[in-house]
Amino acid sequence: MSEETVTSRRKVLGWTGAGVVVAATAAGGAVAAVRSGDDVQPAGAAGAAVAFHGANQAGITTPVQDRLHFASFDVKTEDREELVALLKEWTDAARKMTQGRPVGEGAVGGLAEAPPDDTGEALGLPSSRLTLTIGFGPSLFTTKDGGDRFGLKAHRPEALVDLPKFPGDALDPNRSGGDLCIQACADDPQVAVHAIRNLARIGFGKVAMRWSQLGFGKTSSTTPEEQTPRNLMGFKDGTHNVAGSDRAAQDKHVWVSAKDGPSWMAGGSYLVARRIRMHIETWDRTPLREQEEIFGRTKGEGAPIGRQREHDAPDFKAMLPDAHVRLAHPDNSGVTILRRGYSFTDGTDGLGRLDAGLFFIAYQRDVRDGFVPLQMRLAKLDSLNEYIQHVGSAVYAVPPGVRDEDDWWGRELFQNH
Amino acid sequence: MSEETVTSRRKVLGWTGAGVVVAATAAGGAVAAVRSGDDVQPAGAAGAAVAFHGANQAGITTPVQDRLHFASFDVKTEDREELVALLKEWTDAARKMTQGRPVGEGAVGGLAEAPPDDTGEALGLPSSRLTLTIGFGPSLFTTKDGGDRFGLKAHRPEALVDLPKFPGDALDPNRSGGDLCIQACADDPQVAVHAIRNLARIGFGKVAMRWSQLGFGKTSSTTPEEQTPRNLMGFKDGTHNVAGSDRAAQDKHVWVSAKDGPSWMAGGSYLVARRIRMHIETWDRTPLREQEEIFGRTKGEGAPIGRQREHDAPDFKAMLPDAHVRLAHPDNSGVTILRRGYSFTDGTDGLGRLDAGLFFIAYQRDVRDGFVPLQMRLAKLDSLNEYIQHVGSAVYAVPPGVRDEDDWWGRELFQNH
Repeated sequence: MSEETVTSRRKVLGWTGAGVVVAATAAGGAVAAVRSGDDVQPAGAAGAAVAFHGANQAGITTPVQDRLHFASFDVKTEDREELVALLKEWTDAARKMTQGRPVGEGAVGGLAEAPPDDTGEALGLPSSRLTLTIGFGPSLFTTKDGGDRFGLKAHRPEALVDLPKFPGDALDPNRSGGDLCIQACADDPQVAVHAIRNLARIGFGKVAMRWSQLGFGKTSSTTPEEQTPRNLMGFKDGTHNVAGSDRAAQDKHVWVSAKDGPSWMAGGSYLVARRIRMHIETWDRTPLREQEEIFGRTKGEGAPIGRQREHDAPDFKAMLPDAHVRLAHPDNSGVTILRRGYSFTDGTDGLGRLDAGLFFIAYQRDVRDGFVPLQMRLAKLDSLNEYIQHVGSAVYAVPPGVRDEDDWWGRELFQNH
Repeated sequence: MSEETVTSRRKVLGWTGAGVVVAATAAGGAVAAVRSGDDVQPAGAAGAAVAFHGANQAGITTPVQDRLHFASFDVKTEDREELVALLKEWTDAARKMTQGRPVGEGAVGGLAEAPPDDTGEALGLPSSRLTLTIGFGPSLFTTKDGGDRFGLKAHRPEALVDLPKFPGDALDPNRSGGDLCIQACADDPQVAVHAIRNLARIGFGKVAMRWSQLGFGKTSSTTPEEQTPRNLMGFKDGTHNVAGSDRAAQDKHVWVSAKDGPSWMAGGSYLVARRIRMHIETWDRTPLREQEEIFGRTKGEGAPIGRQREHDAPDFKAMLPDAHVRLAHPDNSGVTILRRGYSFTDGTDGLGRLDAGLFFIAYQRDVRDGFVPLQMRLAKLDSLNEYIQHVGSAVYAVPPGVRDEDDWWGRELFQNH
């Protein structure tokens, strides 16, 4: 596990000029208290900052934070240099915010007569393990009519396919696609919302937010020793996820290798996001045994059908042929993806029903060996389909990590081509 | 402060029949660990259950929890007895859920061949200080054409006025009004969403959800010793709120007295909810000094203009005449309400802007002396109006608390009339 630093925003308030950053090293998972000025705050899970620099972007194998704000942007500028300048500016802001610092050196504002450098609503809050992860959508490389917007067409990864239409898809174009995405994960939603809002603010005039999604609770964990979270169907989800500590599995299933190509993607990954509406009112009127047979696990313990404990090896023959776990399980489907989804509830749908479900996020080394075959299988066969509908969809190439203070998001793509 | 109990859902999973509830007493604010089966969970803020029984409903002066799910319902049944039966059933479910227990005795389901008694997504989670607070809207008492739906017309409190149209209002009927409301507050949003969803499930066919609102972060505190939270304008909000410990101020400004009438409302309160959209993109381009002059406080410290510290007494003459704090402050407006609002971010608005703002919630002894004169003043004068718009509105009579195991929400209203 990478070294984590505990940083406080508390002393970078107001007109005190450059912030005094109090940092301490905390072993992963340990809980400490850091004294910063007059305030004592708990560190550990809530206060620890996740390293921004590294070979891979954070927010993929990082232990899954509690809350999500995911945003998709359309690029409005036609000027490649302006786009590059924005990516550099975004990187700088992300570097600061993930370490619990406001965007501007002057904290709430450099000059009283200018708009503040930072919108301020995260002042006083710890970094909350904020991670910011960028992705590049197919439309950044190729226009709908095959055109080349930014001279990147030749460098679009083969693995960055346009997703096929899957049976049952009911995609809303206003909740799908986008040239760029930012995944903000944090244990405090105010910190995640603050980060997206400030990146949007910085990008004003150059990018426009196409859609965004708040996730109020994680549905998958990359930390097997943690209690497995439950989705809005009430079932434990992600029991056999790729572990954040399992580098071998990540190299096999998550990270793009130098051999895979293109070279600018080495150390990157591919992100698929799907907004999956659950018909929870119908589900809630389904008998328990039927729910369990559809899912392929017991509801209370989360044990595979026919087994006793959650982590017992599944007995696929004990499950119905169209049980969700039987179809989706890596041992049976041959597909391993790293899941990082969140539950959402976005008010009601005008028919007295909650607009609720799962904002599914998966990372994989190649979408063609990952989400595409898995979802084709599920879309055709899964008995869960009666209770869910995919209403939003997007895919992005997630470049490698930002290596140091001079590096920036997308440098390998833009600088070398 | 009321005694709080720490309860665990962990041992009430699966097919173990009636749940084994492990309870311990923790002094308010203290942190303890409760061993329940194989799991050790931290208690204190996150794990402590808030007492459900009492003279007043919880969720009003209770130290404000981090997250909100607020739901408004239309009553579909025309049968008063069916409505009363639902209120009793809801009370029973609320009593269990607020204490960290699932709705049904059989946890995830009494019988395998029946739908589960509880939807299950909060199994394994602590009570997270969940409170459930019910309110009755004007339309429960009187139909639009002056009719009497449930024999309650004569018992509608005079203080439960239909809110007037305020200057600048742009109310969406699909986000306004409703016969009943439930305010669910908890430190874990999964617990708040679970509670609303289960009450909606129980009410299926008798009530329909009219609208609901998720609040991801509190913007007001009733605990002055806490750090004051910030709203999405980046400013500290609720510095001079009614304190949860200040019984005298509550009796004066929040709780309906026996003298106020009607008698069924003694110990109750009146709730005003307003969905206030913020034009944050415009706000973010406003110079810092202007933001501070509009708000009437400094951004970093939150000090009144012309003062040094957040809790310094405001110098109204140092503020612009139309500064928000100058107009709204109790010492100047003569109005004191208990604020309990939450920030929201509900995706984008189709124009590339975040649909974000403040879901304002206020409790008061009489709306006619509380929100109505205050908002009339603000709607006419407040310089903040350039950056905000009220897009949803509702008002409810909040009955007194449920006193014991035999009591139920609304008994004073329905049993005596």
